[in-house]
Amino acid sequence: MKKAKIGIVTVSDRAFRAEYKDLSGPAIHATLNEFLVSPWESIQRLVPDEQTEIERVLIELSDHEKCCLILTTGGTGPAIRDVTPEATTKVCDKILDGFGEQMRATSLCHVPTAILSRQVAGIRAGTLIVNLPGKPSSIRECLQSVFPAIPYCIDLMEGPRLETDERVVHAFRPK
Amino acid sequence: MKKAKIGIVTVSDRAFRAEYKDLSGPAIHATLNEFLVSPWESIQRLVPDEQTEIERVLIELSDHEKCCLILTTGGTGPAIRDVTPEATTKVCDKILDGFGEQMRATSLCHVPTAILSRQVAGIRAGTLIVNLPGKPSSIRECLQSVFPAIPYCIDLMEGPRLETDERVVHAFRPK
Amino acid sequence: MKKAKIGIVTVSDRAFRAEYKDLSGPAIHATLNEFLVSPWESIQRLVPDEQTEIERVLIELSDHEKCCLILTTGGTGPAIRDVTPEATTKVCDKILDGFGEQMRATSLCHVPTAILSRQVAGIRAGTLIVNLPGKPSSIRECLQSVFPAIPYCIDLMEGPRLETDERVVHAFRPK
Repeated sequence: MKKAKIGIVTVSDRAFRAEYKDLSGPAIHATLNEFLVSPWESIQRLVPDEQTEIERVLIELSDHEKCCLILTTGGTGPAIRDVTPEATTKVCDKILDGFGEQMRATSLCHVPTAILSRQVAGIRAGTLIVNLPGKPSSIRECLQSVFPAIPYCIDLMEGPRLETDERVVHAFRPK
Repeated sequence: MKKAKIGIVTVSDRAFRAEYKDLSGPAIHATLNEFLVSPWESIQRLVPDEQTEIERVLIELSDHEKCCLILTTGGTGPAIRDVTPEATTKVCDKILDGFGEQMRATSLCHVPTAILSRQVAGIRAGTLIVNLPGKPSSIRECLQSVFPAIPYCIDLMEGPRLETDERVVHAFRPK
Repeated sequence: MKKAKIGIVTVSDRAFRAEYKDLSGPAIHATLNEFLVSPWESIQRLVPDEQTEIERVLIELSDHEKCCLILTTGGTGPAIRDVTPEATTKVCDKILDGFGEQMRATSLCHVPTAILSRQVAGIRAGTLIVNLPGKPSSIRECLQSVFPAIPYCIDLMEGPRLETDERVVHAFRPK
């Protein structure tokens, strides 16, 4: 079975300058480890909140590393340095509005400030790119809410078959 | 009473090549027949998943046939050949995000992969264009969820007055 | 404590021509008076449904008056003269899709035609701009649904600290 490559990109000025430890990238890795039972490997990157840097690493992980999925964390709020959605939109061929809608709806059950999140998802060639929140506690709830649709999306893009631990998350594939 | 013209556009490479029969266009026609009690006629088209072809037929049905409403089916997923939302966005003056949000929210009650749908709706001059899903079973649930707003939208665009069978669907017009 | 400046912009051809009295601008002012307990002042404007006029007044209130928040009313529907979202999008650096989604979801509880609303919100430099509906009765329900996130958004933009009357609306600030 083909090993799936999944990119994990932490976007944070302060983590990049080592002012604090990146907890969000590892939180994504740990969640995927729980979700997936098919073989996969992660490729992790840490970049500052610079649009061109984010675009460069998304393109590298998509075009050269051939990741079927890239998950970003950080940089999706309303502050001036938050540019992850801009970078994602710029490198994608198609935007999938349903991901952002669904993640905001999920976060709204917990905090009313969920509407400030500008998270998007899109497709660049054979890669699905999804923006997750910056906070480790919110990462899991967002990923849990959209992951059921991700394996089928990757099937449609002719990527590797992702199998999940059904006790944790159900990968839905229409008959 | 002025007869309303409604365009029904099936977007599908395989139906266009006659590899299978188009069931979606007829499903839209049948649903509208149940919904509408005012006089109307449909103008049906079948095109392949080519953006320029879809744009051409949307423009023809809007500018020359003067349809007040065009319903498309197919080509709204994440696959590379899915370009119906791109064609719709290209020919429209205004996009109505609420339609896509509402249709995805409705489909989400049935399947978690609803977030993969990129359905949009928009207005070109006097024509409302709405992307419906490709599957006949999903067409009715999406149309049922947004149709209550369609007659009033067409009123605002100074189109023909659509009257519905109130037992099936209620056309809401604010006082 | 720094006095917050809040712009209130009524967009309406008929109110501008004095064919009827603007009730929507005053409705926003009255609602804010109930919501806010920290010092604030409003700067009110009335413009016709002309995109360049709307853009001009949004830029004036943002760049010169340094409003931390601008609330518009009117011009968000599907009619040809409705161009408030276009003007807002044009002058903003970032769009916050969650506001429009949330306001439409709130209005949908009352009327199915809520999906016709094209309300957006966005940020221009240090100013949050939010499109509210035109009808005074809908203004309060929309503002009530998104206001809990607004003070924290303005904090993130380094604007004045807004304090609310907690009995009326809760300003949520993550710890």
